Amino acid sequence: MAYNDTDWKAINTIRVLAVDATSKANSGHPGAPMGMAPAAHVLFQKFMKFNPKNPKFLNRDRFVLSNGHGCMLHYALLHLYGYDLSIDDLKNFRQVGSKTPGHPEAHDTPGIEVTTGPLGQGVSNAVGLAIAQAQAGATFNRPGFDILNNFTYVFLGDGCLQEGVASEAASLAGHLQLGNLIAIYDDNHITIDGDTNVSFTEDVLARFEAYGWHTQWVKDGNHDLEGLEKAIEVAKSVTDKPSIIKLTTIIGFGSKQEGTHGVHGSPLKADDAKQVKAKFGFDPEKSFDVPEEVYALYKETADKGAKAEEEWNALFAKYKEQYSAEASEITRRFEKRLPEGWQTSLPVYSTSDSAVASRKLSETVLAKIINTLPELIGGSADLTGSNLTIWKGAVDFQPPSSKIGDYTGRYIRYGVREHGMGAIMNGIAGYGLHIPYGGTFLNFVSYAAGAVRLSALSQHQVIWVATHDSIGLGEDGPTHQPIETVAHLRAIPNLQVWRPADGNETSAAYYIALTSHHTPSVLCLSRQNLPQLENSTVEHAMKGGYVVHEDKEANITLVSTGSEVGICVDAIKTLAGQGIKTRVVSLPCWEVFDTQDQEYRLSVLPDGIPILSVEVYSTLGWEKYSHEQFGLNRFGASGPYKDIYNKFEFTPEGIAKRAKATIDFWQGVSVRSPLKRAFTQLI
Amino acid sequence: MAYNDTDWKAINTIRVLAVDATSKANSGHPGAPMGMAPAAHVLFQKFMKFNPKNPKFLNRDRFVLSNGHGCMLHYALLHLYGYDLSIDDLKNFRQVGSKTPGHPEAHDTPGIEVTTGPLGQGVSNAVGLAIAQAQAGATFNRPGFDILNNFTYVFLGDGCLQEGVASEAASLAGHLQLGNLIAIYDDNHITIDGDTNVSFTEDVLARFEAYGWHTQWVKDGNHDLEGLEKAIEVAKSVTDKPSIIKLTTIIGFGSKQEGTHGVHGSPLKADDAKQVKAKFGFDPEKSFDVPEEVYALYKETADKGAKAEEEWNALFAKYKEQYSAEASEITRRFEKRLPEGWQTSLPVYSTSDSAVASRKLSETVLAKIINTLPELIGGSADLTGSNLTIWKGAVDFQPPSSKIGDYTGRYIRYGVREHGMGAIMNGIAGYGLHIPYGGTFLNFVSYAAGAVRLSALSQHQVIWVATHDSIGLGEDGPTHQPIETVAHLRAIPNLQVWRPADGNETSAAYYIALTSHHTPSVLCLSRQNLPQLENSTVEHAMKGGYVVHEDKEANITLVSTGSEVGICVDAIKTLAGQGIKTRVVSLPCWEVFDTQDQEYRLSVLPDGIPILSVEVYSTLGWEKYSHEQFGLNRFGASGPYKDIYNKFEFTPEGIAKRAKATIDFWQGVSVRSPLKRAFTQLI
Ligand SMILES: [Ca+2]
Ligand SMILES: [Ca+2]
Repeated sequence: MAYNDTDWKAINTIRVLAVDATSKANSGHPGAPMGMAPAAHVLFQKFMKFNPKNPKFLNRDRFVLSNGHGCMLHYALLHLYGYDLSIDDLKNFRQVGSKTPGHPEAHDTPGIEVTTGPLGQGVSNAVGLAIAQAQAGATFNRPGFDILNNFTYVFLGDGCLQEGVASEAASLAGHLQLGNLIAIYDDNHITIDGDTNVSFTEDVLARFEAYGWHTQWVKDGNHDLEGLEKAIEVAKSVTDKPSIIKLTTIIGFGSKQEGTHGVHGSPLKADDAKQVKAKFGFDPEKSFDVPEEVYALYKETADKGAKAEEEWNALFAKYKEQYSAEASEITRRFEKRLPEGWQTSLPVYSTSDSAVASRKLSETVLAKIINTLPELIGGSADLTGSNLTIWKGAVDFQPPSSKIGDYTGRYIRYGVREHGMGAIMNGIAGYGLHIPYGGTFLNFVSYAAGAVRLSALSQHQVIWVATHDSIGLGEDGPTHQPIETVAHLRAIPNLQVWRPADGNETSAAYYIALTSHHTPSVLCLSRQNLPQLENSTVEHAMKGGYVVHEDKEANITLVSTGSEVGICVDAIKTLAGQGIKTRVVSLPCWEVFDTQDQEYRLSVLPDGIPILSVEVYSTLGWEKYSHEQFGLNRFGASGPYKDIYNKFEFTPEGIAKRAKATIDFWQGVSVRSPLKRAFTQLI
Repeated sequence: MAYNDTDWKAINTIRVLAVDATSKANSGHPGAPMGMAPAAHVLFQKFMKFNPKNPKFLNRDRFVLSNGHGCMLHYALLHLYGYDLSIDDLKNFRQVGSKTPGHPEAHDTPGIEVTTGPLGQGVSNAVGLAIAQAQAGATFNRPGFDILNNFTYVFLGDGCLQEGVASEAASLAGHLQLGNLIAIYDDNHITIDGDTNVSFTEDVLARFEAYGWHTQWVKDGNHDLEGLEKAIEVAKSVTDKPSIIKLTTIIGFGSKQEGTHGVHGSPLKADDAKQVKAKFGFDPEKSFDVPEEVYALYKETADKGAKAEEEWNALFAKYKEQYSAEASEITRRFEKRLPEGWQTSLPVYSTSDSAVASRKLSETVLAKIINTLPELIGGSADLTGSNLTIWKGAVDFQPPSSKIGDYTGRYIRYGVREHGMGAIMNGIAGYGLHIPYGGTFLNFVSYAAGAVRLSALSQHQVIWVATHDSIGLGEDGPTHQPIETVAHLRAIPNLQVWRPADGNETSAAYYIALTSHHTPSVLCLSRQNLPQLENSTVEHAMKGGYVVHEDKEANITLVSTGSEVGICVDAIKTLAGQGIKTRVVSLPCWEVFDTQDQEYRLSVLPDGIPILSVEVYSTLGWEKYSHEQFGLNRFGASGPYKDIYNKFEFTPEGIAKRAKATIDFWQGVSVRSPLKRAFTQLI
């Protein structure tokens, strides 16, 4: 437990590297790394289990820097411990194409677990990482074989603690009694607006106690390495509560401006940088200058980590002998291979099958596949009975002492915490052994927008079961009826938005969502019943779009999604009565349709006749696939859903009226498919 | 303080009306009204200051039902007290076009202060209402003239307490020591997933104590009217802290299913409804049957309220004699009239003025108008120095005891609480005397999506100062660079999204935002400098779109917004070198442009030549104004902003390349303006 000069040298090296990198970039946040370097040193030297040569070592401890703006702290550690991050990478801090972007991105940098920076996300991801460990450990560990027993450590600052998403996740973590989660709170009394006393005077530890966390306070985070080490030890020993350690530090420790927000978000002035180096025994004229003894000290720890992985590998080999099915299962899930033939469980439908709400179709899919895909870990933000996200025989993921479930449970009661659920699912996915899905009303996916965009950016396979997907939810009214939501989701890169129109399309949505290991999905599902469509097959729907009703002599193509496809089909007859021949196209997933070859796409949305889109949402974006748009560019209404559809004319007659207007308007014009474009977008 | 049989009759009338209305609608939530009827009775009979004949009485107490699904509780009260809400309105509960939608909507129903239902919003609105009272009271009250001294009362349930937005707002309310805010927490142990013990086991009162609230617990909310009355009295007497009273109740009290989630979200079964009526002394065969003595009892209170308003009017008349400027100011602000000639303060620019970041231009506007428009109440979610939302001489809105501001202050330090800020601004706007604006990075407006959509639905005049509006923010990288955000905002009905390209456009954005009293606005502002454009005037930009550079012989129109307009202007020369003549259009606000007459719009985006849009966001929606789109349908990158613009080819050369491709592609086609459509949308 004793710390010597080399320890302090290492701590000061981290500080100086943060000063140098932010100075060279002329951008970035030196203050947090300088303040938290002692804590990072203690944590990584004394506690963290990790192997820099294999950042994906399965049973590694997870480290999350929730105050991601302090990422030079983590980059410096990764470099010093010998991860694949060179001193040149540090010199390229915040440059285009570097491995050291302005905030940590999981897929850019070895050793970064989750993408952080947007405040509150990292600590919520950490709750997910801890849930994943608890679930996997309870599922796979056997007497004498503690195969999965890692801890999750998270650093966070005042900003993270003010964000609601973190409050949601922290409350749930307390409820779940996650003893494998240890948070270190950088209590530096500074946010961007200055002293925390301008807006943040609550008693943080008392709040976390109220959530059911174990709390400690280390009062001198700048010097008291022993005190912090002791606190982490105590935290590890508390196995039935998550722990938070408040660590009072001085932001920008060593700078002439230490303790002020002046060191938060800007590089140090040149003379200040020099005096910092001199103060810490570095040559003020040199930059990126790492003492050899620091590399040596950290290499020792890295080597221990490599050895720890070797020992784990040996343990796992023995485990495999005794528990071969379990071991294969861990490997399979780690390699993101789904069980052979799993997809044969997906239900298929024919037109003679009865009309069913797509939320109910989703429930049927889950019932069929849940036992085949043990990596699926479900849940809902307190709408289980409405989202239909649970299955018969489901066990709740709950602390065993609760007597209402245990840690092998695969159904998570997230509570009314949509944003927390989204961020926690990112953490669960980031652990590497699960595919999380979570239910809420589509309208409330917007509460989680901050987490959804990070799923997409971080390439986490997360599935939203988003029911009550339109005005079709009826009486709950405009406060609950999404209008803009799907346009928002469709505008997020690397996110697949599905709005299935029937049973086969619902199965296709799940098939693609479950096989897209680097892309999150949102499944928009109806409350009301939907008929099984002509020409709908799982294979067709898997293309993202297909022809539901073909007519080679058609005057118009109707393109639609979800609950409106069936109404379009009904409009065929109405239009036929007016001598108009109609094609109908279903486009359940734009993003997947866009990946088909142009020949196929043009067979679905061809030249020659105008295309009218029909969807009970904002028409924003539909011009990409249609010449005219019928949608809802206003808020909805409260009432029985059929009355609302009538009010807004989403009926065969309302569609026919607009189809007729479309045909008249495009009469005599040589009609080109909107899929034909002058140039290809940068992806 | 004594309660008699008529009181209980009234309480039970509320319960029975909730049963009848949900039964008739065959939809809705009887449980919360049945459980909270006693609390509502005590609050409205003994404390609330209100006049049903004038729901807008300025100094009324505000009541917010944060668990808005229980709205039959509030509708029943409004009817019984004689608001303009008839028994037939109750019979039309949850029907299309009724004044009694499925969740309370402020503009639909007299007596509803704010739109609630999306959980966590109402209590956060209440914090805003309380801030507005504290600010207006401190500003306008004078010795002997407590003109504005109302309380804000809020009911909330377990769901609201789990939402992060409510945590954010509650923490800030504690910091601000809002003694005028009293929350009553319906502790009924039930959420949709069943018992709260599945996900919500924190100690709520301890958490609120940690926030700095005064807390009390009334253990028998079903019977103990005196206890609740006493608790509210105590809460009122605590003037330096907001108060929360935990009131333990039985959901669906009186039903055979009381105390279960079976009564939460579905009407009672017919036989259960009958036994409830019989139990409470009502004729089981009758519906919507209100005893005359209940009307009489409530009329007495309503009459007292009318008298209280008369007294206030008399006081205000005297106040007007002594403080005529202040009185006129209150009236002016209440009537939503801006001071005569205020707009002459708006800065104007010419092309010879230097290039300035639009966040800085926004700061200049605020500096110029802030003293002219005392209704403006600003703030930032802990990014004051980046959003540039503060002005010289600003006083912080802070509790006087903090010594760093006082309640007359007009600058709110929201902390890192974007969603809370959005919901609080809705409450401030809802109070009726302020126009709130709040700053954050554009990317983090998404954290507040739930509140933004309610600003729009509730027609609250709220202004977001959304800086760092694109990849142009540079080094912070993709975690902070909005791609999808503006598409999302543009898809929200009744929201004006501005992305000004220079100084005059920034002034125009503020002009329209400040004069649109029933529409929220988001101003998307750059971090980087932008040149002052040719042909840009405040009047032109006020149209939402105009021609920046005309050329009657042009081969192409470039249409763009914000920071890309200047690059389009630079591309004119590049294209001229290739023999191509170019028009450039700036479209800073789609929604405002859409309200111009078609002739003007077609003069801006005419037939005959193809139109290429240029914007560093998702191209989603741009097809509405252009034939081809140049945008960013992927996440950004971390680096100096010019490097990022180069990487993605948002340069004169990159634009010229795509303009050339556009012209070639549309060669020989008779080009129709995309503004010409086959039919008019339902708005
Ligand atoms: Ca801090
Ligand atoms: Ca409840």
